[in-house]
Amino acid sequence: MTKQDSIFPRGQKLPTEWFTGDAFLHLLVTKDKNHEFSAGAVTFEPGARTHWHTHPKGQALIVIEGQGFYQEKGAEARVIKKGDVVNIPENSVHWHGASATSKMVHIAITNYKDDVQVTWLNPVTDEEFEKVNHL
Amino acid sequence: MTKQDSIFPRGQKLPTEWFTGDAFLHLLVTKDKNHEFSAGAVTFEPGARTHWHTHPKGQALIVIEGQGFYQEKGAEARVIKKGDVVNIPENSVHWHGASATSKMVHIAITNYKDDVQVTWLNPVTDEEFEKVNHL
Repeated sequence: MTKQDSIFPRGQKLPTEWFTGDAFLHLLVTKDKNHEFSAGAVTFEPGARTHWHTHPKGQALIVIEGQGFYQEKGAEARVIKKGDVVNIPENSVHWHGASATSKMVHIAITNYKDDVQVTWLNPVTDEEFEKVNHL
Repeated sequence: MTKQDSIFPRGQKLPTEWFTGDAFLHLLVTKDKNHEFSAGAVTFEPGARTHWHTHPKGQALIVIEGQGFYQEKGAEARVIKKGDVVNIPENSVHWHGASATSKMVHIAITNYKDDVQVTWLNPVTDEEFEKVNHL
């Protein structure tokens, strides 16, 4: 990969309990008396992705670098790239991440329902990931 | 100016009723049943800035390109640049914008209090703007 002039530091590595591969979080905005969400820049190195998961009150993704995928359970994966926005509905089983060959960075704005932002499910298997990458 | 590989299109010109100079909005996320905010990328060409204003439930700014200023009434202006985040409290009189010589692009995440996001006040005068630019 060529050196890139990323906007944000890569931040903290995200736990393998919920992410496959090398994914990182740089926190930008935390929930407070005004914000009913948190926001962070998530960097997915090539091949990295979330596990399948849901958000009880939805999430917005704003892709700021590279490209990758967003897939809702039972639907075709959507290629998402720099400049794209994804509005993820509540309780929809989905995953997002880099492609096999490209890094992706997105800002995630994640709403809270009471104190819950996310429910984690199974990993996206290599077979599932290879299928959307047409490998 | 050199050509820049901006993430988002520049979008719609913002009205001179509330902005000085050439400022533009590319809307990213609108309020809906999940999001209690809207989010947009705001481009300020050099010299462009908001009028003084307040937000009834605060706003978060995430600077993604260039540099400019954020100033709360009665306080020194703060230089803000690519990668910086500003958490603007509710009902604080403030402005933000480019510097005299540099463009700035920020994502603004603006909360709603009932149906209100912003109350507009007076323009930032040329004298006020020149002072923070040390012109």
